[in-house]
Amino acid sequence: MSNGQKLIDRCRELAQISDNADGTFRTFLSPGMRRCYETVTYWMESAGMQVHIDDAGNLRGVFPGDGCCAQPLLMGSHLDTVRNAGAFDGILGVILAIELVEMLGSRKLPFDIQVVGFSEEEGVRFSTPFIGSRALAGSLTEEFLALRDAAGISVAQAIRDFGLDPNNTAEIALKPVPLAFLEFHIEQGPVLDHASESLALVDTIAGLTRARVTFTGHANHAGTTPMNLRSDALCGAAEWITEVERTALATSGLVTTVGKLDVTPGVANAVPGEVTMTLDCRHADDSVRFTAVKALRASAIAIADGRQLTFKWADLLNQAATPMHAGMVELLNSAARQSGLSLRRMASGAGHDAMILAACMPAAMLFLRSPRGISHHPDEAVMAEDIDNALAVGGNFLKCLSQTYKQWETS
Amino acid sequence: MSNGQKLIDRCRELAQISDNADGTFRTFLSPGMRRCYETVTYWMESAGMQVHIDDAGNLRGVFPGDGCCAQPLLMGSHLDTVRNAGAFDGILGVILAIELVEMLGSRKLPFDIQVVGFSEEEGVRFSTPFIGSRALAGSLTEEFLALRDAAGISVAQAIRDFGLDPNNTAEIALKPVPLAFLEFHIEQGPVLDHASESLALVDTIAGLTRARVTFTGHANHAGTTPMNLRSDALCGAAEWITEVERTALATSGLVTTVGKLDVTPGVANAVPGEVTMTLDCRHADDSVRFTAVKALRASAIAIADGRQLTFKWADLLNQAATPMHAGMVELLNSAARQSGLSLRRMASGAGHDAMILAACMPAAMLFLRSPRGISHHPDEAVMAEDIDNALAVGGNFLKCLSQTYKQWETS
Repeated sequence: MSNGQKLIDRCRELAQISDNADGTFRTFLSPGMRRCYETVTYWMESAGMQVHIDDAGNLRGVFPGDGCCAQPLLMGSHLDTVRNAGAFDGILGVILAIELVEMLGSRKLPFDIQVVGFSEEEGVRFSTPFIGSRALAGSLTEEFLALRDAAGISVAQAIRDFGLDPNNTAEIALKPVPLAFLEFHIEQGPVLDHASESLALVDTIAGLTRARVTFTGHANHAGTTPMNLRSDALCGAAEWITEVERTALATSGLVTTVGKLDVTPGVANAVPGEVTMTLDCRHADDSVRFTAVKALRASAIAIADGRQLTFKWADLLNQAATPMHAGMVELLNSAARQSGLSLRRMASGAGHDAMILAACMPAAMLFLRSPRGISHHPDEAVMAEDIDNALAVGGNFLKCLSQTYKQWETS
Repeated sequence: MSNGQKLIDRCRELAQISDNADGTFRTFLSPGMRRCYETVTYWMESAGMQVHIDDAGNLRGVFPGDGCCAQPLLMGSHLDTVRNAGAFDGILGVILAIELVEMLGSRKLPFDIQVVGFSEEEGVRFSTPFIGSRALAGSLTEEFLALRDAAGISVAQAIRDFGLDPNNTAEIALKPVPLAFLEFHIEQGPVLDHASESLALVDTIAGLTRARVTFTGHANHAGTTPMNLRSDALCGAAEWITEVERTALATSGLVTTVGKLDVTPGVANAVPGEVTMTLDCRHADDSVRFTAVKALRASAIAIADGRQLTFKWADLLNQAATPMHAGMVELLNSAARQSGLSLRRMASGAGHDAMILAACMPAAMLFLRSPRGISHHPDEAVMAEDIDNALAVGGNFLKCLSQTYKQWETS
């Protein structure tokens, strides 16, 4: 059995561990997460790591180095999932990091390796993502600890219920700061699959604007209101959605999505009086994104004016693009070349734990192809040969870093 | 006080009678309808009519003529309402007919006048409209009597609960067939208000196609799926909605509406995988409507093909246009001219009881202006001067028909 297939089997074994009977579903410090941690702990310990759970619920395994470098290398991803999830999103990044440690055997690197399984990335339980990685980045403030789930339980209470101490979360941030953070993750998109490529270097995590756009006209009788006397909010929305799509098609790397759309009154025999929709707009370059959002806002206003609709715009989210660490990306690129691989560089359209950690340490990501681009779905998959390639790149990366880590040490 | 204001007051008095505390709401043979009937019965009797409730729950007042003509003239509209209704939809047509009788005083016409307040037109309680007028047209079949409301009560049971006999509904159709049916109704649209006109002759009730249209693509991650690798069902829907609007704007008298639209999964960060929407398409000329629907179906197929979406179309309703009786419309037109009014002819985009009765007797309608086109809303209104005009036309119509009724008698 290839290492790739072994890791697929491990991910599928973890996918059996769920909070409910409805596929794979594990949220922050849930019963499923506790059982998942037990299994992952066993694998970490078998690879020679000392394992503990920190007070933000992150599972952390330490593989000691030879002591030359005080700063550890951090690797990993998250162990929580969305509802009815696939087996690989997040999980694979943890399992792959453990395997890289296991492949070292009795070899000692100049630095410790810390493998982390983040307790929360998907934002399912508290409608807010990255609780685990925020703790390691030192940004899990009181505000986050006070968030409550659907049952009214706060993050702090959930930590307490698990047997941990929410008063210690400020102490979780690693000291000294790690040399770097490396995250392996499935692409969650169709780019590599479409190009028949195995892996990609992530050079940026795209910035994101999310807004709520509302057109309001007049809800009238569908039979008695002539076309020229209508203020149809949905016709205005349709015109704008076409413009949203056209703008993205004309702008390299831009993705725009109207994903949610609600019509009022929303019955067959009434002219739509109001439409509320979401805009999601992402690009690796913030200035490109700002220009596009500005143009789309102007186009919505023009459409509303032309149709005697009123227009409202509410900003919901404005998240800057996060460049990955250029030196880290270059080191991964060298490692890939040593493995005989020439990897494309691409932006990640989705947010990842690496985005949070990039605020305080050199961070980078390696994407593995997602067959058919499927993610957040039980059909999510990964190919054994791609994992083997990722392990080869990861192994060479550890060698490269062992030779060059002094460049990364903070004084 | 003008007669117009008196009739407005009567309508507003009836609007106080409701099945609930949430505005005006009266459904088929509900407690509110019983109280409404008591008040209307009083007004009918005061105008000299003999009143009874037939076994389909219609309130019927008979004002005897001099016996020359065996066939009565039928006038009226419906007394049920939508939820949180206005005061005039349907109701005004009943109250106006009663007033026309009252204005006759002791005069006898060659024919009886029957004023009918239909028990059900809006289709609220049983999700099927025209229960009252179907009974008078002889088309209230067992199928309708078996319909059940949200509480599981059938039409037949509701009739029984009111103290009537559902086994007699086949006997309700008038014998001999009436000379004609005349319905006064608010326009429920903005045409007369926009043109600053008081009344209109309805020459046709528009035909209607209703369909459910579904585009299915792929629900993907809004951040990780490049524009060129998407099959976005909402972008396809938007393109089609624009085409639906363009087709109607380019076709005189055609109205098209996409009133209901549902997006799956319908979240901000996912490319829409499926959109289901309704099409409502109406025109006075069935061939124009058929041509438009065929073109819109073809355009949906072309859009789906171009975007690699799958396409489904389900016919929900196909209702032929109903011409009003040409002779009746001409008689009303003469009556209007005698009142110094020159009335436009227009199609009704909404269905009315006259559409049902037109199947078995000469039927016509007179529309009264709806200020701001508002209907099915507490702000629904009617102007006293328009009611005065309608009463003038109605009075002259009775005179004209008294002179020419022999042309209308069936052998």
